[in-house]
Amino acid sequence: VLPLALDAMGGDNAPGDIVAGGVAASKELGVDVVLVGRPEVLAELDTGGLKVLAASEVIEMAEDAGKGVRTKKDSSLVRAAEAVRDGKASAMVSAGNTGATMASALLRMGRIKGVIRPAIATPIPLPGKRPTILLDAGANAECTAEMLVQFARMGSAFASARYGNERPRVGLLSIGEEPGKGDPLRKETFKLLAEDSTICFAGNVEGRDVLTDAVDVIVTDGFTGNVTLKTLEGALRTISAAVFEVMVGTEEAKAASAPLLPGLLAVAGELDPDTTGGAMLLGVEGVCIISHGSSSERAIVNACRQARDMVEHGLVDRLRMAISD
Amino acid sequence: VLPLALDAMGGDNAPGDIVAGGVAASKELGVDVVLVGRPEVLAELDTGGLKVLAASEVIEMAEDAGKGVRTKKDSSLVRAAEAVRDGKASAMVSAGNTGATMASALLRMGRIKGVIRPAIATPIPLPGKRPTILLDAGANAECTAEMLVQFARMGSAFASARYGNERPRVGLLSIGEEPGKGDPLRKETFKLLAEDSTICFAGNVEGRDVLTDAVDVIVTDGFTGNVTLKTLEGALRTISAAVFEVMVGTEEAKAASAPLLPGLLAVAGELDPDTTGGAMLLGVEGVCIISHGSSSERAIVNACRQARDMVEHGLVDRLRMAISD
Repeated sequence: VLPLALDAMGGDNAPGDIVAGGVAASKELGVDVVLVGRPEVLAELDTGGLKVLAASEVIEMAEDAGKGVRTKKDSSLVRAAEAVRDGKASAMVSAGNTGATMASALLRMGRIKGVIRPAIATPIPLPGKRPTILLDAGANAECTAEMLVQFARMGSAFASARYGNERPRVGLLSIGEEPGKGDPLRKETFKLLAEDSTICFAGNVEGRDVLTDAVDVIVTDGFTGNVTLKTLEGALRTISAAVFEVMVGTEEAKAASAPLLPGLLAVAGELDPDTTGGAMLLGVEGVCIISHGSSSERAIVNACRQARDMVEHGLVDRLRMAISD
Repeated sequence: VLPLALDAMGGDNAPGDIVAGGVAASKELGVDVVLVGRPEVLAELDTGGLKVLAASEVIEMAEDAGKGVRTKKDSSLVRAAEAVRDGKASAMVSAGNTGATMASALLRMGRIKGVIRPAIATPIPLPGKRPTILLDAGANAECTAEMLVQFARMGSAFASARYGNERPRVGLLSIGEEPGKGDPLRKETFKLLAEDSTICFAGNVEGRDVLTDAVDVIVTDGFTGNVTLKTLEGALRTISAAVFEVMVGTEEAKAASAPLLPGLLAVAGELDPDTTGGAMLLGVEGVCIISHGSSSERAIVNACRQARDMVEHGLVDRLRMAISD
């Protein structure tokens, strides 16, 4: 079995938490992980005996993605993608610069034949339920109806591979449930999706359906998808902070809150994106996990688990079939 | 002083809660309210001595807006808009069909000179802070950069009139903070906003800034704005439900929760859109409040208060100046 290529240098908490996550994943999941990054930096850390794939450069979080990938040929991201391309790793995992992760995967692994543009699929955690997969979460600010149809197919294949959901319901994110609602892109996409017999199209969904199990896959352009996900993130943060303030506002409140904390922390955990194992770049010739920039050690373990599962479940083959159908 | 024209027939809870809200507004705020609707229906309710403007038809919530306004010339919405146009009412308030409310206002009152398209401005309530105004919340699924610049100006004028905020900071909703981020519409709009000396442009904001006080006015197209607002709405609902479940899950939890409830209900109240007085249609020749379809009696009181305040603060004159500057 090939190892997972983990970009040890990418992420707000890199390299410490990333390496710790790789070590934990190797122990807990029994997966083989290769750390990609600067040997001299990694030598300072407890790498738990994991192999190191040397890469002398780092594409920084805020760096221009295209330029970074073009000029830093010996960066951890580019080397991780090459390892997958060259059959030396089964998948790549990075919490680094999202644009550069996409560009590395796309340029080094290449596109699945027929795919117009790869998309980022993000599982949105729901309390007590299977996550809803939203795509495109930001890879393509501009989309055509044909791209959205491919996203629907790829998202369905991902939902099948990830959650064993053999007939995932697909919703088109719009501003009204009726078929005629939305801008010209949604109207055209609606028609194409309704005619596509390879997917289970459930019609339009609205923003208020995103954090519910109304459908299993939500399709939208990368601009709207990115705004939607970040809106959810901000809402979760603001509401949690407000609830927390009530619970610790007075000594009486603190005392009263104590028995509720385990349950509330469990809810917060269920809604925490770190638990879902990160987003996936769908449409490239390999498994590529894009973990949140703020990934913790735990998030990296979950990302590695997802990478392993997607390799085992033959995600890339499923995507190929979904596109060629 | 002219009365407010309240569409008594529009909304999920019409006419009961709407009429009750009008009666309460008249008592609590001392505003004069005229109920617009079917006299025979209103005669069955306690209208607290409010005057009635007869309208024999009703545009239903799910009805096609354009067709409704064209064919139902004696509908409560059309009559309410005519009352403002004819100087018989100072403002209109409706919790009915949003599209039909917009169309009635636009067709009967007309557009402010120079306005390309009116927009819906929605105050997003924040815990403990002044709401952030988001526009366009759904009037225009497709927008040009010139329209977004007008929305920035109108939103600023509204923030000034509504919250006494004389130099509101305007953010452009995009998928990254840097000037170059986003689709071509955002890039073009960014340049125009940066050059517009009549507003205080703070640059791009992201979805995660929506439920914060990062800026005072957030400008976006009506498609993205509508998805964003409904995403917030759904998130609030799902998270509240999950927290509530923990708090009443066991007898022990129920007992522990009791002292926390007042504080948590206060937070829920602060985040409740009903408290902000509803959305406003900006760019028409009159004050038009679009209240949430699910408006309660309390929401209608708040909407009437906002209508009165916007008339008193000369909102329409301010919008005229903002556009002609």
